[in-house]
Amino acid sequence: MSTSDIDQLVHLLSKLPGLGARSARRATLYLIKHRESLLTPLGNAMATAAANVRTCSVCGNLDTSDPCHICRTETRDKTTICVVEDVSDLWALERAGAFSGYYHVLGGTLSALDGVGPEDLSIEPLLNRVSDTGVEEVILALNATVDGQTTAHYLNDRLSDLGVRVSHLAHGVPVGGELDYLDDGTLATALRSRRSIDQS
Amino acid sequence: MSTSDIDQLVHLLSKLPGLGARSARRATLYLIKHRESLLTPLGNAMATAAANVRTCSVCGNLDTSDPCHICRTETRDKTTICVVEDVSDLWALERAGAFSGYYHVLGGTLSALDGVGPEDLSIEPLLNRVSDTGVEEVILALNATVDGQTTAHYLNDRLSDLGVRVSHLAHGVPVGGELDYLDDGTLATALRSRRSIDQS
Repeated sequence: MSTSDIDQLVHLLSKLPGLGARSARRATLYLIKHRESLLTPLGNAMATAAANVRTCSVCGNLDTSDPCHICRTETRDKTTICVVEDVSDLWALERAGAFSGYYHVLGGTLSALDGVGPEDLSIEPLLNRVSDTGVEEVILALNATVDGQTTAHYLNDRLSDLGVRVSHLAHGVPVGGELDYLDDGTLATALRSRRSIDQS
Repeated sequence: MSTSDIDQLVHLLSKLPGLGARSARRATLYLIKHRESLLTPLGNAMATAAANVRTCSVCGNLDTSDPCHICRTETRDKTTICVVEDVSDLWALERAGAFSGYYHVLGGTLSALDGVGPEDLSIEPLLNRVSDTGVEEVILALNATVDGQTTAHYLNDRLSDLGVRVSHLAHGVPVGGELDYLDDGTLATALRSRRSIDQS
């Protein structure tokens, strides 16, 4: 084997999701062979991120400023908050570019199995935001898993007390998806939620 | 999208072999969530590697010292040199732990298509090592590709002039491999190179 500095790099890279021991070795060699163009800049980018990235105290997004650049944007739609489980979901929605309101990151879902209760998630801050500001609609963009739907149900109960409209993402056939490969639950839901052609 | 520090980290990570844009985003989020245990150490490890890792002037291995720790080990078999294309092959052989001699990294293979000639590889240094030191056998551990075998053929010509024994790795059925899934060329070679049971 090689020496400790290289081993250490392989060891740490192999902890990243999606990289195993073999791909971490490949990445390490690639990094060392591209020292100026990749290894040094990546090391610097990691140091910068470690020093600067913080959690937005308003919505829970990760950014170099607090409040984050989304919460600081005055031109977004102040009447709508989109609730997501994780920062990655927020990024995915921003990439889709279809939402112009503000976000709220829960930090997970309720889970009896994993012992995650309402107090472990950013639910009180959400309720405070909704009652303190002029929010009219809360969109629950939670994953279509059992835990995600349990959480949506719980949030719906708490939010309807505040007199705010609560909605969730539509279930149905993914754009580009083939019926043949869809599970029965999705097909049944898509059929039940069918829409008139002129409506869409 | 998120801001420039995070984007920069995603952008650089996505250049690593085996990571695309999606997995780079996943890795970035994972890094930021494991700041103390992974992000900071990994940034430091990259800075250390960028500062310390160099190419061994004797064999071409990557190490924090020159000569590398293998070339500095006096107890290895000085009569044998194993020639490999790349540092990753050297590491693979060291992991297998089946070779106790010294190595020589060519840095690639001859390739008419890519315009790689003998002067682009570490061939002269290899010939000098063989003629200057008491090397008795050179093992050509090159990949079983067309370019690898062309290079082996060329090296065999050059090395036999120096009166040294030249060998190559055995071709055959991989250990644990199933005949049904092997290509015809490997099967034919394995059959031609069959060995008596008592010999192995």
